[in-house]
Amino acid sequence: MTVSRRTMLGTSLAVLASKKVLAKVPAPAEPAPPSVKPSLVVPNGSILPSKLVRGARVFHLVAGEFDHEIAPGLTIKAWGYNGASPGPVIEATEGERVRIYVTNKLPESTTIHWHGVFVPNGMDGVAGLTQEAIAPGKTFKYEFTFDRAGTFMYHPHADEMTQIALGMMGMIVIHPRSGESARVRDYSLMTHEMMVPIGARRADPLAMTDFNVLTFNGKAFPATDALVAQVGDRVRIRIGNLGPMDHHPIHLHGHAFEVVATDGGTVPTSARVPETTVIVPVGTVRVVEFTARAAGDWPLHCHMTHHAMNQMGHAAANFIGADPAGVDAKLSRVVPGYMTMGHAGMTEMSTMRMPQPANAISMLGGKGPHGVIDMGGMFTIVKVRDHLVPGQDPGWYTGSTRASEASPSDLVGDGITP
Amino acid sequence: MTVSRRTMLGTSLAVLASKKVLAKVPAPAEPAPPSVKPSLVVPNGSILPSKLVRGARVFHLVAGEFDHEIAPGLTIKAWGYNGASPGPVIEATEGERVRIYVTNKLPESTTIHWHGVFVPNGMDGVAGLTQEAIAPGKTFKYEFTFDRAGTFMYHPHADEMTQIALGMMGMIVIHPRSGESARVRDYSLMTHEMMVPIGARRADPLAMTDFNVLTFNGKAFPATDALVAQVGDRVRIRIGNLGPMDHHPIHLHGHAFEVVATDGGTVPTSARVPETTVIVPVGTVRVVEFTARAAGDWPLHCHMTHHAMNQMGHAAANFIGADPAGVDAKLSRVVPGYMTMGHAGMTEMSTMRMPQPANAISMLGGKGPHGVIDMGGMFTIVKVRDHLVPGQDPGWYTGSTRASEASPSDLVGDGITP
Amino acid sequence: MTVSRRTMLGTSLAVLASKKVLAKVPAPAEPAPPSVKPSLVVPNGSILPSKLVRGARVFHLVAGEFDHEIAPGLTIKAWGYNGASPGPVIEATEGERVRIYVTNKLPESTTIHWHGVFVPNGMDGVAGLTQEAIAPGKTFKYEFTFDRAGTFMYHPHADEMTQIALGMMGMIVIHPRSGESARVRDYSLMTHEMMVPIGARRADPLAMTDFNVLTFNGKAFPATDALVAQVGDRVRIRIGNLGPMDHHPIHLHGHAFEVVATDGGTVPTSARVPETTVIVPVGTVRVVEFTARAAGDWPLHCHMTHHAMNQMGHAAANFIGADPAGVDAKLSRVVPGYMTMGHAGMTEMSTMRMPQPANAISMLGGKGPHGVIDMGGMFTIVKVRDHLVPGQDPGWYTGSTRASEASPSDLVGDGITP
Repeated sequence: MTVSRRTMLGTSLAVLASKKVLAKVPAPAEPAPPSVKPSLVVPNGSILPSKLVRGARVFHLVAGEFDHEIAPGLTIKAWGYNGASPGPVIEATEGERVRIYVTNKLPESTTIHWHGVFVPNGMDGVAGLTQEAIAPGKTFKYEFTFDRAGTFMYHPHADEMTQIALGMMGMIVIHPRSGESARVRDYSLMTHEMMVPIGARRADPLAMTDFNVLTFNGKAFPATDALVAQVGDRVRIRIGNLGPMDHHPIHLHGHAFEVVATDGGTVPTSARVPETTVIVPVGTVRVVEFTARAAGDWPLHCHMTHHAMNQMGHAAANFIGADPAGVDAKLSRVVPGYMTMGHAGMTEMSTMRMPQPANAISMLGGKGPHGVIDMGGMFTIVKVRDHLVPGQDPGWYTGSTRASEASPSDLVGDGITP
Repeated sequence: MTVSRRTMLGTSLAVLASKKVLAKVPAPAEPAPPSVKPSLVVPNGSILPSKLVRGARVFHLVAGEFDHEIAPGLTIKAWGYNGASPGPVIEATEGERVRIYVTNKLPESTTIHWHGVFVPNGMDGVAGLTQEAIAPGKTFKYEFTFDRAGTFMYHPHADEMTQIALGMMGMIVIHPRSGESARVRDYSLMTHEMMVPIGARRADPLAMTDFNVLTFNGKAFPATDALVAQVGDRVRIRIGNLGPMDHHPIHLHGHAFEVVATDGGTVPTSARVPETTVIVPVGTVRVVEFTARAAGDWPLHCHMTHHAMNQMGHAAANFIGADPAGVDAKLSRVVPGYMTMGHAGMTEMSTMRMPQPANAISMLGGKGPHGVIDMGGMFTIVKVRDHLVPGQDPGWYTGSTRASEASPSDLVGDGITP
Repeated sequence: MTVSRRTMLGTSLAVLASKKVLAKVPAPAEPAPPSVKPSLVVPNGSILPSKLVRGARVFHLVAGEFDHEIAPGLTIKAWGYNGASPGPVIEATEGERVRIYVTNKLPESTTIHWHGVFVPNGMDGVAGLTQEAIAPGKTFKYEFTFDRAGTFMYHPHADEMTQIALGMMGMIVIHPRSGESARVRDYSLMTHEMMVPIGARRADPLAMTDFNVLTFNGKAFPATDALVAQVGDRVRIRIGNLGPMDHHPIHLHGHAFEVVATDGGTVPTSARVPETTVIVPVGTVRVVEFTARAAGDWPLHCHMTHHAMNQMGHAAANFIGADPAGVDAKLSRVVPGYMTMGHAGMTEMSTMRMPQPANAISMLGGKGPHGVIDMGGMFTIVKVRDHLVPGQDPGWYTGSTRASEASPSDLVGDGITP
């Protein structure tokens, strides 16, 4: 847009302004170009470095295996890009020509598909159909133009079941040529789910439903970085889900938001719906926006109860109010050799400092300001404050009266018999 | 809205009307206040009593364990509030100040989170993060203002996997200050899913996918109360889903409806979509509305085939057209010690009056006007009649020509060879 | 509409035109009647024949069991209609009176429910509730009017778990009385999922999650027919999902589309959202439309990774990067007696021509122009070409530069170290 108008006027606004002749230019039919630069934040992640070479932005993705810490206590062999799962975010601007080199250091062939991006068919990355697969050791070159702004994803389209299960996926953020129309806190999050048997070091690619490692940007709570915002800020969260199997309902406390875009494009204002929980189906991006309305520590999490927990939680919570005979077989499958613990709940377990199995997430990490936060998995916190100090951890929120034990005078005054 | 206009005019419209001066009042810029009072109906459930004390509406929820009948034949130990699962509906009016006391009679700590309600952070009910958990025996006080109308939910945010699995959840309905703009039949329904092994008395909180007890407001068909409406009535159904794991596609026969609100707010008219099946993701409310268009008994049910059945159905239907070797292991898991029955279908089983395992839902209960209704679980009926008699059971619908065996003259006339 | 206006004018526009008096006719308030005839295409399927008899369109569905080939190598005993699963598409025009005869050649009772169609309650097809079930050997008659255009579905409402699992389902397409307003490529696709143990010949109706046979119109890739379109064509795909259990996220490469209708009616333009993946919940129809924008072979597939694979794939891909101890139990359940194969990936297996178990889909069928396409299941290809030759297979697309191995000069020029 900006480019075409500049062309129409025959020179740039910047040049005009420097010549002090701006007042003579007729009022443009379009709004002035926004001055706000995009500023994407990737919690627990990073943005893929690039350089401008020979008329294109050049990126290099290296597919490989590496040690990946899900949360303190649990490290697995993951597959991903440039040593990360999800891989670094590819960030570019609408209209940019790109060359993306992909080196395969995996033991099997791979490709990359640019999910949602309009590329020439031969750049679509479908092994066998649109290209030869990239054999181990080889480096392939993809070249195309990001012809529209939006949020997209990348992943292999070769042995997808295995490669996605083990962690190969990433986000693509293409900013509009015109920049942002207003300042926005802009976050990118990617969901993932794995089945990692207790004590194992790899995800089981055959798992279809019984996932026990649920992550935002590759991390399970309490290892997930918080998102921060100041009261009144516009906040955008770009949530991508490449599966393998579940449509995650992502819930935010204390706010309502709207889906403003998908990987297919912008949602027209007339079609936007207020929600507190957005379902993010497999193979989609849901970009939500809201205005931070009140200070506090507001959880953001998958609302499927088994997805806001960690491996240990599945076992620990099982003995309260449950029929032991009915669950023994299943439990021993999930936690081989695990001892039965009587009637202790999750909180009790978290605090009794029981012996921890090797390579499993400790529940002790979820300490909050008022005791154990017995959540895990796909759970993080949006920390909204009246005033944020740049670069300073906002810590726990303590600025609000909180629910507490009712006093005798409350009970009498309100006629409550506990 | 009403309040502010009354203030502006200096007196209430009711007073003006009684003084016969209404004609002199200038036409209000806003529509006249609606006179229709909300009238919420909770099938198989109830509304939580409250009282106005010291400037607030006061409620008391008691978390505990109790015997809960899913349907005749199956009674379990459930967890819930005030002896019910889901708990009673919290009903209030937009702008009301409330104090909600929560007494914990469970064997483990709990809290209550007010899902979708904008509360001060300290009232958000997240154990460890925004408050201390409520220890067994304790009574906590929550105090806040319902600052917007809508449909919300409540549930524990402490050991959620266990507590939600066992039944702890409830609905919140906040009516607009201005009342309803028109008469509406207003229903509240909450979905739930449990795995209760045949013969067991408790749900298995570890279940992630193989649920066999599916309920609306805690009841499985045929124990679900029907919803009633008269032809031409506007009907609203507020459907809440707190999980644990499935996004339920709720289908209504004979009508199309629109989602008019979520727990995030009202869906603008421009964004409404006609549907016959609404997917209600975990952690969301979907409020649907439609006009009752034709008399009949119209099923309303989850369309996932295993969710509109009961425990026995899963076993019974298995022997028709199935490969016995392929299903034996799974079957014996679901129905330990259950006998194999040859090639009988569900209908046959329902009518052969076979010996019933202890504590299991009998399929015999689903008797309809034209034989066995071999449905169960998350299934109920919207009974639409040309004229309803208040307080009178509308019975079965018989007012329509129905599909029946083709006559020889039909077959000949239409050239059909069976 | 057309009919009533013609009546109002006293003669048809065709007659007027032939009399050369068209210029004198006042401009009609409504647009001229469209001249485009609907032309529905059912990949791998067919349209149910009908005839006009005694003032109604007469159809005959025969429910029964038959041999059904999922893909070369895998033939099962399916249940369906007129020897097909899904059954043939019922096609009619808005306002048409129909009589549909249903003959039951199954070993158990059945009915047909007309999902989304507004029928008199007695024609709704719910066994026991709105009619007697159709006993084996009987022929029933349904008679009603398709009173609105749209896309609907048909299926049994008797022992649904078994009958739907085994394949009983079909689509209904009712064209608007006024025809199409423009030429459109109009496709009908139905999803299905089954668990067929390797070597077995029947689906397991108890399966709730671990499906291994995923189909579009009853076929698994590579047996799925391609959809074709010319660049610039408007393309409509009517996607129906009757379950049993999964909400399928159907993704299209290289394009964004909009949901323009559901089984509840037309989505208003204001409510349409651009997407690349549409979630089709159980019990819904999602009609998507897009303009074919670029030549190529563009995959259309379910994005759940285990749903774009075949039986063999689940086993084959398992041995790369996986913890064998963790998957052995599960694997032996899926593939009884199957040999372990070391560290070969799916591609390797597909090409090593290993001995094939009896009655299982061969992975060798997925050959593409650039090697093996290691996809299966709910996967097909939208073949967009600059110019289509009617009746001629467009073959593979080769018109685009494709991703390939980076040359040494590329690597040096762009400063890439593999």
